[in-house]
Amino acid sequence: MVGVIGGGQLARMLQAPAVALGVQLSVLAESPDASAALVIPSAPVGDHTDTEAVCRFAQACDVITFDHEHVPADVLDALQLAGVDMHPSPAALVLAQDKLAMRRRLTEMEIPGPRWAAAHTLSDIDNFAALVGFPLIAKTPRGGYDGKGVRVVRRSEDLSDWLVAAERDRHTGGGPLRDGILLEELVPFDHELAVLVARSPSGQAAAWPVVETVQTDGICTDVIAPAPDLSPELAAAATHAALRIAGELGVTGVLAVEMFRVGDHPAYPSGFLVNELAMRPHNSGHWSIDGAVTSQFEQHLRAVLDLPLGDPRPVAPWTVMANVLGGDYPQVYPAYRHVMARDPGAKVHMYGKGVRPGRKIGHVTVSGADLTDVRERARHAADYLQGVITE
Amino acid sequence: MVGVIGGGQLARMLQAPAVALGVQLSVLAESPDASAALVIPSAPVGDHTDTEAVCRFAQACDVITFDHEHVPADVLDALQLAGVDMHPSPAALVLAQDKLAMRRRLTEMEIPGPRWAAAHTLSDIDNFAALVGFPLIAKTPRGGYDGKGVRVVRRSEDLSDWLVAAERDRHTGGGPLRDGILLEELVPFDHELAVLVARSPSGQAAAWPVVETVQTDGICTDVIAPAPDLSPELAAAATHAALRIAGELGVTGVLAVEMFRVGDHPAYPSGFLVNELAMRPHNSGHWSIDGAVTSQFEQHLRAVLDLPLGDPRPVAPWTVMANVLGGDYPQVYPAYRHVMARDPGAKVHMYGKGVRPGRKIGHVTVSGADLTDVRERARHAADYLQGVITE
Repeated sequence: MVGVIGGGQLARMLQAPAVALGVQLSVLAESPDASAALVIPSAPVGDHTDTEAVCRFAQACDVITFDHEHVPADVLDALQLAGVDMHPSPAALVLAQDKLAMRRRLTEMEIPGPRWAAAHTLSDIDNFAALVGFPLIAKTPRGGYDGKGVRVVRRSEDLSDWLVAAERDRHTGGGPLRDGILLEELVPFDHELAVLVARSPSGQAAAWPVVETVQTDGICTDVIAPAPDLSPELAAAATHAALRIAGELGVTGVLAVEMFRVGDHPAYPSGFLVNELAMRPHNSGHWSIDGAVTSQFEQHLRAVLDLPLGDPRPVAPWTVMANVLGGDYPQVYPAYRHVMARDPGAKVHMYGKGVRPGRKIGHVTVSGADLTDVRERARHAADYLQGVITE
Repeated sequence: MVGVIGGGQLARMLQAPAVALGVQLSVLAESPDASAALVIPSAPVGDHTDTEAVCRFAQACDVITFDHEHVPADVLDALQLAGVDMHPSPAALVLAQDKLAMRRRLTEMEIPGPRWAAAHTLSDIDNFAALVGFPLIAKTPRGGYDGKGVRVVRRSEDLSDWLVAAERDRHTGGGPLRDGILLEELVPFDHELAVLVARSPSGQAAAWPVVETVQTDGICTDVIAPAPDLSPELAAAATHAALRIAGELGVTGVLAVEMFRVGDHPAYPSGFLVNELAMRPHNSGHWSIDGAVTSQFEQHLRAVLDLPLGDPRPVAPWTVMANVLGGDYPQVYPAYRHVMARDPGAKVHMYGKGVRPGRKIGHVTVSGADLTDVRERARHAADYLQGVITE
């Protein structure tokens, strides 16, 4: 029995490969109608911050993995003390939970990244700005995702409220800013890339092709696999960096490394800079369900069970995944008839989640030989499902 | 909510596309540990021959479909009287349940088939043998599958016991032989083919490529998609016949038409003869899960919900599906390590069923450009999982 802490869409999408492989899943769900709880028979409801509930859940499982990175360190410690087999391990997971610790570690490893600093005071911000210039990027080291907890800073006073919060967090020893604010230079990137790799406890690793993630307002809207116009050298260097991160951090399961792609720029000789890490199946890998021999979800299951990894190669020249975001239409199912009739090859994946504006509620994948066609078809289907177009 | 009567592996394999499409399934299962009940949250236990249990189950569902063809006619009648939306309809399903009725109907439609007769007496058998010669094939019209209820007859006395049973069934008005024994000529076929089509209540239909089914002792061991060395004319004629059957019988959902392929033979100018029908997803279509844009399971769901059908085209030049049959090894999971390490591209599907000799407990699919390679890989993985080879 593989236990998954958190009942979101990532846990939900583990179910199809678990059914195929005959692996029983159990999900510690936020509620009985959580995305994964709707499709997995064993889905006890429990709070991932409740040490007792999490430990009780883990005792019924052979191995534990995660739908998200929000399990607190003290809960992870208690699990480890109880001898629970966790993938990824708490030692690795802490770096995915803490962007400052992650930056420190990647800098030690000499992985290309934006220049960064931890700020506690206005003068910390001004000092860093003297080096990289305004505007710069500020992030809360903990708890942010999908553009939340990220701010573009034009002058140090833009962060006055965060500095107050940081001072408070430092006193209480908790909260997202307890170790200060993470400042990063604003990278003049051309595109955003993601490298998805998987690594098993035995040390076997596999990488999918590097993909391009198209972001709008800090939320990924489309993923193109493989990333267009990427030189084999850059693809190899980016993949090598992701595999090094997985290996040196001891990640087990899927690791997503989000990167900026910078053009010919003397300050960035590597051509890419690592932006964020996620130690779990990731939105940038959803294309692999329909577009690769082995999906990120099957690979994650194989990895956490320490089974040999599957073939990550694509099954078509191009695959595009378009996210369906909650819009003004509360019902998406009436749109099925149109989407399916217009495009019999579009693969629709819905997460069983209530519609809220901007929330990821599903995705559509299209594969084929012509990127322009594939991209238009995926985007059209997703737009129609989210009510942006109604024809 | 789509209700499925029967909790076998076909119901189980509906779960992956149901998760993707956000369709809730409910299964009327034989037991709490039935193949589908292990992976679908709503799986009440009930007997498919118990009218009250089936009607109660159906009332909680929007539409009903079937994992098998064994729901008795009186239960189907009760469901229809209660206004339950069933796919396929009882009118179509009865032909899949009764091989004599099916033969009669296909003969009326002038679909190519073996010569046949219904036998009640020894002289019926001898009269038919005078026409087609011994050996001939005898079948129980109802209740047979996977070679059960099929006998090769070398002289009429070989059927003495069945004639006694037929006489008894005729008196009681029930039993597999109540309308006599179905006799068929022994067709000198080269290969066996299967044509899988889907049809929606609106009348839209879609066909997968014609496949070859490789049978050993009456059980299908391998399926090759598409069927090798098949002329486009023969493929088109076989597909046209299957689509005609689906249309004229009013089948909704997936229809599998098993056929004999006969070489250049003056008695069989069509080149193919229809052997059996199944009105549900079928073993000969399992290759489509990994090998086609739309699998038979997704297509069946779309059809029973009267949604537009998906693209049935293959994603690779060749796909081979090898059945994993229960063997001497009660445990298959220890073999995963070998199978996955040897072939990262093999797609393993296990059904969560106990191992019994000869029972279908899973399948393996491999896709690629070289048929010999693909076939060897699929067979090796299946043989290893079933304990035939251990290297």
